[in-house]
Amino acid sequence: MSGGPRRRQLLAAACAWVGAPQGVYAQAPAFAAADLEAAAQLRDQALRDGEAWRLVESLTTEVGARPAGSAADARARDWALAQFARLNLAEARAEPLPLRVWRRGPSGARLVAPAEQPLVVAALGNSVGTPAGGVRAEVAWYADYAALRADPVEGSRARGRIVYVDQAMERTRDGRGYGAAVGMRLGGASEAARRGAVAYAMRSLGTSRNRIAHTGAMQYDLAQPRIPAIALSVPDADLLARLHARGTAPVMHVEVAAAENVDATTHNLIAEVPGTDLAREIVLIGAHLDSWDVGQGALDDGAGVAIVTAAAASIRAAGLRPRRTVRVVLFGNEENGFDGARAYADRYRDAPHQLVGESDFGAGRVWRLRGRWAAAAQPLLAPMAAVLAPLGVALPETGAHEGNPGPDAGVLMRRHRWPGIELSQDGSAYFDVHHTENDTLDKVDPAALAQNAACWAAMAWLAAQSPVPFGPLPPA
Amino acid sequence: MSGGPRRRQLLAAACAWVGAPQGVYAQAPAFAAADLEAAAQLRDQALRDGEAWRLVESLTTEVGARPAGSAADARARDWALAQFARLNLAEARAEPLPLRVWRRGPSGARLVAPAEQPLVVAALGNSVGTPAGGVRAEVAWYADYAALRADPVEGSRARGRIVYVDQAMERTRDGRGYGAAVGMRLGGASEAARRGAVAYAMRSLGTSRNRIAHTGAMQYDLAQPRIPAIALSVPDADLLARLHARGTAPVMHVEVAAAENVDATTHNLIAEVPGTDLAREIVLIGAHLDSWDVGQGALDDGAGVAIVTAAAASIRAAGLRPRRTVRVVLFGNEENGFDGARAYADRYRDAPHQLVGESDFGAGRVWRLRGRWAAAAQPLLAPMAAVLAPLGVALPETGAHEGNPGPDAGVLMRRHRWPGIELSQDGSAYFDVHHTENDTLDKVDPAALAQNAACWAAMAWLAAQSPVPFGPLPPA
Repeated sequence: MSGGPRRRQLLAAACAWVGAPQGVYAQAPAFAAADLEAAAQLRDQALRDGEAWRLVESLTTEVGARPAGSAADARARDWALAQFARLNLAEARAEPLPLRVWRRGPSGARLVAPAEQPLVVAALGNSVGTPAGGVRAEVAWYADYAALRADPVEGSRARGRIVYVDQAMERTRDGRGYGAAVGMRLGGASEAARRGAVAYAMRSLGTSRNRIAHTGAMQYDLAQPRIPAIALSVPDADLLARLHARGTAPVMHVEVAAAENVDATTHNLIAEVPGTDLAREIVLIGAHLDSWDVGQGALDDGAGVAIVTAAAASIRAAGLRPRRTVRVVLFGNEENGFDGARAYADRYRDAPHQLVGESDFGAGRVWRLRGRWAAAAQPLLAPMAAVLAPLGVALPETGAHEGNPGPDAGVLMRRHRWPGIELSQDGSAYFDVHHTENDTLDKVDPAALAQNAACWAAMAWLAAQSPVPFGPLPPA
Repeated sequence: MSGGPRRRQLLAAACAWVGAPQGVYAQAPAFAAADLEAAAQLRDQALRDGEAWRLVESLTTEVGARPAGSAADARARDWALAQFARLNLAEARAEPLPLRVWRRGPSGARLVAPAEQPLVVAALGNSVGTPAGGVRAEVAWYADYAALRADPVEGSRARGRIVYVDQAMERTRDGRGYGAAVGMRLGGASEAARRGAVAYAMRSLGTSRNRIAHTGAMQYDLAQPRIPAIALSVPDADLLARLHARGTAPVMHVEVAAAENVDATTHNLIAEVPGTDLAREIVLIGAHLDSWDVGQGALDDGAGVAIVTAAAASIRAAGLRPRRTVRVVLFGNEENGFDGARAYADRYRDAPHQLVGESDFGAGRVWRLRGRWAAAAQPLLAPMAAVLAPLGVALPETGAHEGNPGPDAGVLMRRHRWPGIELSQDGSAYFDVHHTENDTLDKVDPAALAQNAACWAAMAWLAAQSPVPFGPLPPA
């Protein structure tokens, strides 16, 4: 179907994309009609072939949770190589990455005053353990993270206490509620330690009311003592808020066990649909293979793994030969260090990347397309969006040339100024399960998952067929 | 407002309830108009005074989970006495009950083949512990409890294995989905042991897809070996089903710790709105004060405690003096033995009970009224329902004289043939949280809770004012 550049130019001249005025064709690049037609066929095929569902069902059933460097992560590597082979993808490889990992041990907490009540908690990723026997102290309650940061260090009421930050996150389609609150997870423990606290606790960074606590990475400011850090489930956070409303300062007991700096290996998993005349140029469609150790890593990021792998497989299955190489990259250790993204950025620094994008926001439907491309390529965004329009995807009225290509792809974009694509998913329900035991296969909607795969297949194909490069981006 | 029997009869003659034809008045008993009016006022007052919410908020915040015989159960006793005093209820007392209780220890399970995967499980109440180091065996999978019971004992594939029963429960308004499936929890372990199994596991008896396992009482057939019994969360049950669909027989490791026959004390908590001319006759409105050790006992049965206590308090607060005594009974150890109900049945066997009813199905709205009353009193059911009609409560077209007054009240009704009332609640969402960590205050809808209290207040008042006794029921 793709007949080389000359044939495509002829086709483009004959039946140029509606909306690219003939008079400006020399200035405004356009996709060849045959490429647009192939994109629509890929879209429709991926929508109905069930491949993304097969992949996420298989990964969650046969591997499950797969924290970077664990035995399950190694099984995930083998699983990915087997799927790449089954789907006839080329150049399949696992690129090993030595790293040091944090491993969760048993943890727990309870109120000991005003009355004994068990709490459902999770240690935050990278938390140090407590001394044997745990830490017991009165709670110093802060309504939100800003209140903690505004608390003067000298004479802080945090001193000798367990700091608790009660900030709730907002449910939004685009995930900005998470962005607005994640700082309390990343930096809260050191802000508390700076004020003399003996431990740090926070309301779970999530939107569900289930009694399941949220985990996720935190980081220590090495200038401060490292104190243990936990999140309370939302109903337990509500309990603390009710006690606070009574004027009660509860006493909490916290126990955390964890191992740090465990030598381990993870991998980037890579496979390709080989390009033809522009094979050196890479269209990178990524996800991350690792997950947190809770749940099954179904939405985070089994869904993304399934979406981008199925997208590449659909191009292969259709017998299409793209101009550029479509490369699936399943990054290692996105969750706790971006080791995979950093290693990829080093290793492939000299490979021209037409585009980088990552699916890492669950399995909600794609509703928006945005891209950070060089100005000369920006006219191609609208026709790309037009192919996705039947799936409910729109270009935004403003900000079409902004966006975030995903956490690992974002590392690449920032490092090398490679162009990025954002297929914005509906994340309204994502933070109900993200980073919790509830991230299990039943939370994945097969129809929405297929819609995602259809979008990525069509988008990747068109990016590979573009008559012009999407980069370079202007300097930051 | 209640002016004695003579005044009531006069009022009844003057403004008899619409629908009780004058010509049959001598045969058909009717409520006095003033009593109906007072019932409507109680209804409206309880709907808006917020008392039930205050009670359940207080119980879950200040006590939390309160398994019978625990330190928290003793705190719940003190809490109830304090609330009875605050609400000016009379004859408040705690009637101690010695009992032996089961106490949960740590438990866990995981798949060890085809791959290591952690499972989220809960030990069933009364489960024996596993030997130190746990039990490890291949899973013998049964689609439902009937399949297990149909499996011939001789040569059963259960022998030496961990029996797993995958039966899912149906979501219904009236809870019949629970009734249809609870047998696998109560008797499954002994059915498995009869066939040589080394442990018993089942799909959680609940309607949610949260990765939170369900507990609840099970019972051993003492003719069989006692084997440990657990429930898997629904996502983990789904995982087993997917492995089964692949033809895989997983190997599971189970560890359960528990203490049996621990000497303890629980209590029935009792308080009254004293009657006048028929004070000896009791209108019993009950709930149970104990809960499982998971969650906060908010819906099961903090809501019921709040509803019936608030109902009695509203009669007291209105300054009404009922003819019969309205007695609040908060039963001890409903969850694992009905000790409170049995002790009450023994102690009060000679007290005439006009009516027994219990609120123990969460905080969903009441939608139906049913009662098991002597034939002579049955004409009073329709006018009682008419008072509740503005709250969305209806008499059923058939079966108005059937029903279940609740688990503890049912013990009393069966033992003594005391008349029973059922205020049927909408239980559609109840089994999303019942007997799980998710049974927390945030799952209680304050408006629906107030609707319940309004129904119980009006119903209890009218039962206390009835011109005729509701009993005795005919022999079983």
